[in-house]
Parts: sequence; C-alpha cells; structure tokens
Amino acid sequence: MIRAYAAHEPGGKLEPFEYEPGSLGDEEVDIKVEYCGICHSDLSMLKNDWGMTQYPFVPGHEVVGVVEAVGSKVKNLQIGQKVGLGWYSRSCMTCEFCMSGNHNLCQDAEGTIVGRYGGFAEKVRAHQGWVIPLPEGVNPVTAGPLFCGGITVFNPIVQFNIKPTDQVGVIGIGGLGHMALGFLRAWGCEITAFSTSPDKEAEAKALGATHFVNSRDPEALKALTNSFDVILSTVNADLDWPTYIKLLRPQGRLHLVGVIPNPLSVPIFPMILGQKSVSASPLGSPTTIAQMLNFAGRHHLEPIVEFFPLEQVNEALERLQSNKARYRIILKMDH
Amino acid sequence: MIRAYAAHEPGGKLEPFEYEPGSLGDEEVDIKVEYCGICHSDLSMLKNDWGMTQYPFVPGHEVVGVVEAVGSKVKNLQIGQKVGLGWYSRSCMTCEFCMSGNHNLCQDAEGTIVGRYGGFAEKVRAHQGWVIPLPEGVNPVTAGPLFCGGITVFNPIVQFNIKPTDQVGVIGIGGLGHMALGFLRAWGCEITAFSTSPDKEAEAKALGATHFVNSRDPEALKALTNSFDVILSTVNADLDWPTYIKLLRPQGRLHLVGVIPNPLSVPIFPMILGQKSVSASPLGSPTTIAQMLNFAGRHHLEPIVEFFPLEQVNEALERLQSNKARYRIILKMDH
Repeated sequence: MIRAYAAHEPGGKLEPFEYEPGSLGDEEVDIKVEYCGICHSDLSMLKNDWGMTQYPFVPGHEVVGVVEAVGSKVKNLQIGQKVGLGWYSRSCMTCEFCMSGNHNLCQDAEGTIVGRYGGFAEKVRAHQGWVIPLPEGVNPVTAGPLFCGGITVFNPIVQFNIKPTDQVGVIGIGGLGHMALGFLRAWGCEITAFSTSPDKEAEAKALGATHFVNSRDPEALKALTNSFDVILSTVNADLDWPTYIKLLRPQGRLHLVGVIPNPLSVPIFPMILGQKSVSASPLGSPTTIAQMLNFAGRHHLEPIVEFFPLEQVNEALERLQSNKARYRIILKMDH
Repeated sequence: MIRAYAAHEPGGKLEPFEYEPGSLGDEEVDIKVEYCGICHSDLSMLKNDWGMTQYPFVPGHEVVGVVEAVGSKVKNLQIGQKVGLGWYSRSCMTCEFCMSGNHNLCQDAEGTIVGRYGGFAEKVRAHQGWVIPLPEGVNPVTAGPLFCGGITVFNPIVQFNIKPTDQVGVIGIGGLGHMALGFLRAWGCEITAFSTSPDKEAEAKALGATHFVNSRDPEALKALTNSFDVILSTVNADLDWPTYIKLLRPQGRLHLVGVIPNPLSVPIFPMILGQKSVSASPLGSPTTIAQMLNFAGRHHLEPIVEFFPLEQVNEALERLQSNKARYRIILKMDH
C-alpha cells in the first residue's frame, strides 16, 4: 500500500489515503518521492475546473525523488538514481510525435494526476521515458517546480527559437514568470518584465529582468510600441491582447503558456502589416526537460521556493490559492 | 503630363485624368505601363475602406511594363527592361528591416497607390529597389497579378518555412487562392482546398489541390481534425476560426493573408495542447518577389486572368466587385 493525500470531492480537503499500486509494468518505474512542488494546475484539478478529475484525487506532478523499483525492460534508469517527474507520466512511444521526439504532443500522453495518483504521496509510478535523471549541478531540494512550471516557460524558448539577441517581454512575475526571467537572462536576452505589482520591480530585476513596466500604466505600455520580438505571457487572466500585439516588432510573437478564461481577440491589421504571430505551448518533451535541467544546472538557476511538510498540504494549497506563495511551494516528504 | 484614370470621391467612377509627375529623383524609375492587374485592395482603396485614400485617386499596383527613364543613381535597371511593380513602391532603405532584406516591413514603406498615383495610367514612378525585373520564363502578359496577389500567398511559404512534406489547407479559391494552389503544388505539398463553391472542385484540382472540401459541410470539416501543418486563409470574410484551429495538427499554423472584418477569436486550450500558432503576413520584400518570379518561371505558373482595355476600367471594377472575375482581371494599356 502507498500512503498519499487525496481529496474525495471537488475542492475537498486533502486527507491521508492509501492505495494498492498493483504490479509494476515492464517499462515502469517507481519513484520514492522526496519533494513535490505544488502547481496551480493541482488546484485546478482539485476543483475539477477542467472536468477531467477523478476522485479520490491525489495531486502532485512536480516530483523529485529516487528510483525505488524498475520494470524488467527499464534500461536507462537504476535503483537509487535521483530523478524527477512532471505533468506527463506516459505517452504511447510509437506515434509520429513520440517517434520524432515530441512526446509531449502525443495524443495519448497521460497526465501524472489525470486518472492516476500523483506525487503527494510516498511513491509515484511512471513510464521510464518520462522519468528524467537530475544532472550534476541541479539541487534536488528545489528542482521540483522545474518539472512543470519550469519546463512550461523553457519549452517555448526552444520550440520557437528565441534568440539571445531578441527583445523579450515576460508578462507576470509569479510561479512561472520568475523562472522565465532566470532562463531568459541566462539565454542572453534583453528582458522587460510586465507586472501589475510595482513593488516587484527590484525582485524582477534581481531575477533577470533588464527593465520593469507596470502593466496597469497605459502610457508606459504605449511607449513600448514596436519593441518586442517575443512577449511571453505566463498569467492565467484575460489581458488587453491587442495592446500587447502592438508592442511586438514586425515578425514578433505573442506566446501564451497560461490558461486564460476567454478566447483571445486578435485584430487582423497589425498582424498582417507586422507579419506577427500568436501562439501557445504545453509542457516540454523528455528531451527538452533534460536540456532544461542541464541548462539550469550550468547556469545555477533554481526556482524560488517555500517549503511545507506533506502533512500541512492543505495550508500550503490555501497559501498558493491566495497568491501568497513566493514563488512556488514544495512539499517535503517525511520518510 | 501623364494620362491616367482617377476617381474623385469615395466609390466614384474612374475618369480620364492627367497629372504632372515632376522631376525624376536620382534613385527613381519611370515605368511605361503595359499591363496592370486589378486587386481587391484597389476596390477597398477606391471606397476609402481603410481611411487612407487621397483623391483624385489613381488605382493600380500590379504593374508590368518597361523601364522608360532612370534617375542618375539607378544602377540595377536599364531603359527598355521588362519590369513589374506591386503594392509598395518605396521604402526607407536604411532602417533595420530594409537593411536585413525585409523592406516590406519598413515602417516607412510607401504604397504605390497610397498618397501617390498608381498604375491605371500610361506611366508610374517608383524607387529602383521596388522595381523588379521579369526573369526568363515569366509571361509579361499575365504576370501583373503576381506582384500583389501572387506575392501575398508566396510570401508566407518562404517566411514561415512551409515544407514540401507539409499537409497544407488553402481556404478560398479566388484571386489569391488559385495562385496559392499553383505555388504549393510546385513546392511539393499535399494540398486540401476549402471552398464554399462545390462547383469549383474540378478546377481547384486542376490548379493544384490534391483534395477538395466543401467548407459549408461541418461533417467534412470534422473528419479533418488534426490534419494540417498549415492552413492558409486567403478570404476576407469572418470564418469559424476555432474550427480551423482544430483541423491543425500539433505544431500547426493558421495563417491569414486576407483582411477580415472582425478580430479572430482564438481559444486557448487547443492552442496550448497542440502548440499551435495563428499568424498573418503582408506583401513580400523585393528579394522574395524576385524569388517568386524565378520560381513561377521555372514551374510555368501563371495567374488565370481576364483582360479589359484600360478604357473599360469601370466595367472591370464592377466585374471584380460582383465576384465574377475568374480569377484576376488585367487592364491592357493602349500605347
């Protein structure tokens, strides 16, 4: 039996819960969880915002731990190895997307907490392809949030070929945005942070922003017309998207990684005249996750985190829900 | 004095009109117009739909003719040379976009018919940089529409790196769409034509479409979910864009070259999960126009056109306005 924390109804409190994992598949791995980050999507799933939650629901998809058991056909991982696991824990491994290294776009990819029990637990199980070894230089204590929030903002840098010479805007200095600033600084970009919280300016600059703009100041925004090669939005709120499209230089891209409540409204004239793009992206593939970990290790990038013991998971969720977390919360397991 | 046809008020009839062009600039070229295509944007400008028309208004920006005079600093063109001219006739030549070969994105690029007299005339004047020689193999009689309609659909193939292995959808089999089919077939793509006119199926296939879909058939559209790497919309009508976004494969792009009346509504979930893009583009740079002409010549691609003498310009505009043209109209000058 595996000890975990589960909710039994939408928005319910997490309570101690035990389940029988069944026998380990040939290509599966059991990870002994040491740390597990909390992500906004754990909250959304807990509340069944996306209509796909099954109860009892065990959240947790920013796992760091050690390999505890491996199936008979597992080749790339050894027992005792330090590893991480993110939003996805399985994909079909045979479709054209899996076969081309884009496992994250596999139409049958399975979420770690979608119809399965996640990482707020002593152990979690996944396919070997999605269990990524932690390289030298990555601190396992703080690495958890890299596996969902981190890869969410690192993935578009790789997938959409953001260049070190690019002028990049980052909207939102939160769980995702603060990691975007660190990655993009190390990537060599000139970065403007957009935030509704003017008191975050000093911290945003310490994290990597070259410039800081109060996004509630229309004059400050207007002054930046035609300025950005890429604007990366990390927020999950509806913004005045036509304004941000105006801030793009010709050939620029507005890229969203946050799930916003309503469709974007995209005006055609500035898009045509400026040859502009609007795009979005999900989590990264296992290969991109491994690249991110290596990059983070070489550049000494770590998420800024707070810790809670697993037993205080409800208090931790409450803190995230009320936007008090600076910037991610990690649950520590007590083995 | 230069003889031309001009309208004197929004939507007015074109009437014979003469103007004095002034002295030729050092880097300017006078083109003796032999043929001039009619584009939907001539109609939009005639009616002042975009609020930037100056009257008397001489339309015409799909010019083919011969160089009749060159300024003292013109190096790349000789008198008597066969050339073409499109939407733009000048750009600053010094900004970062001009300097990087993206003259079409110059913020000071000047339209051939915006604040200037266009090609429904015996002569038209332009900067040498935008006057493009016709290469071997391009038929000057039918080449006019390549300089606006043609480059509008060729430009995204180059700018957004459409690949011969791509599955491409083309929405609209009209002035732009019929040229898109030809270019994309020669490019090597598998092409699905989307049209509201089922009677165009045979012609669309003759033009280059591999498959034909009636875009008013919801079941036929649904069956194509997750099918396209690129969908190129050439229409200037509001369509059900979320449906076309669903037809894109992961990493796919919906690209618009038509000016649509209202902003696009872009739903976030399919964009994120499928790492999709929505984009748009304007006319191409002089270099891309030259590439297009060379490509069209090598592949024997010509627009399908009807001819009117310049004197019947009002009848020609009426025919275009009523969507009867198959597929572009060219005015023949009577020198």
